[in-house]
Amino acid sequence: MDSAATNPLDLTFAALADPTRRAILARLATGDASVTELAEPFAMSQPAISKHLKVLERAGLISRGRDAQRRPRRLDAAPLAEATMWLERYRQFWEARYQQLDALLAELKKDELKKHEARAPGKRRRRKSR
Amino acid sequence: MDSAATNPLDLTFAALADPTRRAILARLATGDASVTELAEPFAMSQPAISKHLKVLERAGLISRGRDAQRRPRRLDAAPLAEATMWLERYRQFWEARYQQLDALLAELKKDELKKHEARAPGKRRRRKSR
Repeated sequence: MDSAATNPLDLTFAALADPTRRAILARLATGDASVTELAEPFAMSQPAISKHLKVLERAGLISRGRDAQRRPRRLDAAPLAEATMWLERYRQFWEARYQQLDALLAELKKDELKKHEARAPGKRRRRKSR
Repeated sequence: MDSAATNPLDLTFAALADPTRRAILARLATGDASVTELAEPFAMSQPAISKHLKVLERAGLISRGRDAQRRPRRLDAAPLAEATMWLERYRQFWEARYQQLDALLAELKKDELKKHEARAPGKRRRRKSR
């Protein structure tokens, strides 16, 4: 439990595993915002939003601005860089998979074309003679 | 609750928010493995590992091979591609931050050099006259 709490990647991925928190980060990507401003687009109470903000803060994904009255929240993207770096190690796997799918699709298209030609050889010849 | 359960990104990020599950994926990146093989490097019971495997399966990150006896698990990287794509939208933010840090570092180095030169102007002149 303790090691989980201190692993930055655990905190980052856990913080990202919620649509409201991802939406808050997307909003902050357009500029700093106060808690009231952040709560606005959601059908959520301010305490519920504050709870989400705390999770994001603990993960180091947001911080508080200097303005003591508004306390605007700001996006801190460094943990996202670390998460991306972890995921990048698996890029070869999904790229290989997409290449397999591309090859399969090309094969299917070729088969489809062959079937089409076998079904209507006359049509094809007629077209050629024009 | 229900919408959270059906959002693939929620499932992917939640599955990644645990060091054991990330280690299992890293192991499967080197090749398919049975549950017994996956459990080996961890000081964990097989039921505990099975629980982690269920979370990874539900997120679509692993699947079961054809071998009915061993039931080897295989890495499915497609959800990782989706997670990376989501994170990529924030690349500009951390790159901007790193550029700021680079600029700050360059500024600090320049200041340090100036201070050094101010402290030992003679040394510098002597070196120049050689």
